Amino acid sequence: MSQSFFTLVEDRIRQVEALMRSEALQYHPDLQSVLAYLLSSGGKRIRPVVTLLSGDMLGADNEKLMNLAAAVELLHTATLVHDDLIDGAMLRRGIPTLNTRWSPAATVLAGDYIFARAAGFAAATQKVQLMTVFAETLATIVSGEITQLFTSRGKACRDDYYKRIYAKTASLFKASTYCAALVSPVDDAVVAAMDSFGYEIGMAFQIVDDILDFTGEQTRVGKPVASDLRQGLVTLPAIYYAEAHPEDADMQQVLNGDYRDGVGMDRLVSAIRASGAIREAMNEAREFIDRGLAAIADLPDNTEHRALEELAFYIVDREI
Amino acid sequence: MSQSFFTLVEDRIRQVEALMRSEALQYHPDLQSVLAYLLSSGGKRIRPVVTLLSGDMLGADNEKLMNLAAAVELLHTATLVHDDLIDGAMLRRGIPTLNTRWSPAATVLAGDYIFARAAGFAAATQKVQLMTVFAETLATIVSGEITQLFTSRGKACRDDYYKRIYAKTASLFKASTYCAALVSPVDDAVVAAMDSFGYEIGMAFQIVDDILDFTGEQTRVGKPVASDLRQGLVTLPAIYYAEAHPEDADMQQVLNGDYRDGVGMDRLVSAIRASGAIREAMNEAREFIDRGLAAIADLPDNTEHRALEELAFYIVDREI
Repeated sequence: MSQSFFTLVEDRIRQVEALMRSEALQYHPDLQSVLAYLLSSGGKRIRPVVTLLSGDMLGADNEKLMNLAAAVELLHTATLVHDDLIDGAMLRRGIPTLNTRWSPAATVLAGDYIFARAAGFAAATQKVQLMTVFAETLATIVSGEITQLFTSRGKACRDDYYKRIYAKTASLFKASTYCAALVSPVDDAVVAAMDSFGYEIGMAFQIVDDILDFTGEQTRVGKPVASDLRQGLVTLPAIYYAEAHPEDADMQQVLNGDYRDGVGMDRLVSAIRASGAIREAMNEAREFIDRGLAAIADLPDNTEHRALEELAFYIVDREI
Repeated sequence: MSQSFFTLVEDRIRQVEALMRSEALQYHPDLQSVLAYLLSSGGKRIRPVVTLLSGDMLGADNEKLMNLAAAVELLHTATLVHDDLIDGAMLRRGIPTLNTRWSPAATVLAGDYIFARAAGFAAATQKVQLMTVFAETLATIVSGEITQLFTSRGKACRDDYYKRIYAKTASLFKASTYCAALVSPVDDAVVAAMDSFGYEIGMAFQIVDDILDFTGEQTRVGKPVASDLRQGLVTLPAIYYAEAHPEDADMQQVLNGDYRDGVGMDRLVSAIRASGAIREAMNEAREFIDRGLAAIADLPDNTEHRALEELAFYIVDREI
């Protein structure tokens, strides 16, 4: 990311990365190298960036904020390690996933270790309330994944979709901005505003990810176009399409639980890409962003506030 | 357990169980039923019993203590869920393991959910320092399991053995008694004494478990006698035996990494059972208990103190 909002915190993001990789000599050296390996892939670090900018806007204690940013990114990383194991994913952020290099047993344990490190950084903020948020966020993320595992595929239900993307993504964005406010000298109204801001931009972030799954190209993302739909997972573009084209036989087939790859699926993906559904979903993402920015409109008008605005627009305007 | 030390806290152990099972409506209902299922097996609840007695001896805040006891037992439960998945274990505490009923994916997530609930109860104690201990204990346990996964089998090294049983068992006993002191109105010297007490009885507990693996009967424990040795894991009785019988060919074979089941292994197990190694290992467990009780000898001489003494002797005198 070369955006100016990123430049503003780039040095400290490197420090957060160093913190995450920092030696913990009492543990097995391979666990140390796992962390180094997982962090080597780069990644956008969007969550720690949001965390640092939010805290900086509000005058947060820097040490607590750095620990919080490390905790947030490690919690995210730990859930990805277990996710990739469960999905049998081969690549993540362009490098082979841990489960392609380690046994399932070691991968489960590596994820657990990263949870433990995340909890350690959260505790290092010395804020009890933050620990509670942290624990609840992990439970929300995991509960969402269980729901996704146990729910039959091929449903185009908006409510289910919003719940799913909240659990998967918005819950941790929300925890990041909420906790950044918790380690800042601000009152409850500001904490609540930051809570809303994180929720709204997190929802937008996942909606745009779901759009990019349709509009991206196979070679660049390393998975097929519309990989979710091909697994029976109906995301917002497909929901808009299904609502506008109740008669589409290919869509009906998916909604009936038959989401086999084939001519019908390819035709459906092309139809969704060519339809207004993409633009409608993007408009909805922009509405989330607008609500998020409105929530913090009255907060200090400083460089970091403007950087958060820039970041919010980046969320909807980014390309893969 | 019908021992009087257990009777003293039995009602509150039931309350801790209710707390662990308590509804968390925002999460997937199957996660709720997983907790109910795992808790239905009974189990000795030795860790929450130690936690409650320790806190009661020192005048702990009862609400914090109950949350701590729930956190400790759930942390233990979560590690067992992932352990059983990794080991492919079929039974735990006499009931089928979660991994025999759920897919590996769901079992990984269920374990993560229980970690999250454990962290939530730890946070509910409102003690920041306790959260740090909690995170470090989880990292220690997981790191120990990684070491066990990655280390070649068939080694009879005392140092490795003590490190392994510390990570596996003593670390959480130590965290329990240390944190019970943290939520009590006591000074640092008492906290340090409780830390030692938990460490020593935890080490003894695992040594006795390792002895019972040799002396128990197959039918009652649901696994073969000397199941560890049959997997190349050399525990204290085998270490004593190897030291006393450097010439034993069957033992040498195991130490050379050949721990196949067969006539040689059965002969070795019988030899260890019949040797003085069992008694020597038990004497060592008693020394740990004695050191643990000495560490808390100056603490309040009340009913709970005497119950903890009784519990410590139960640890070495129990049968399967």
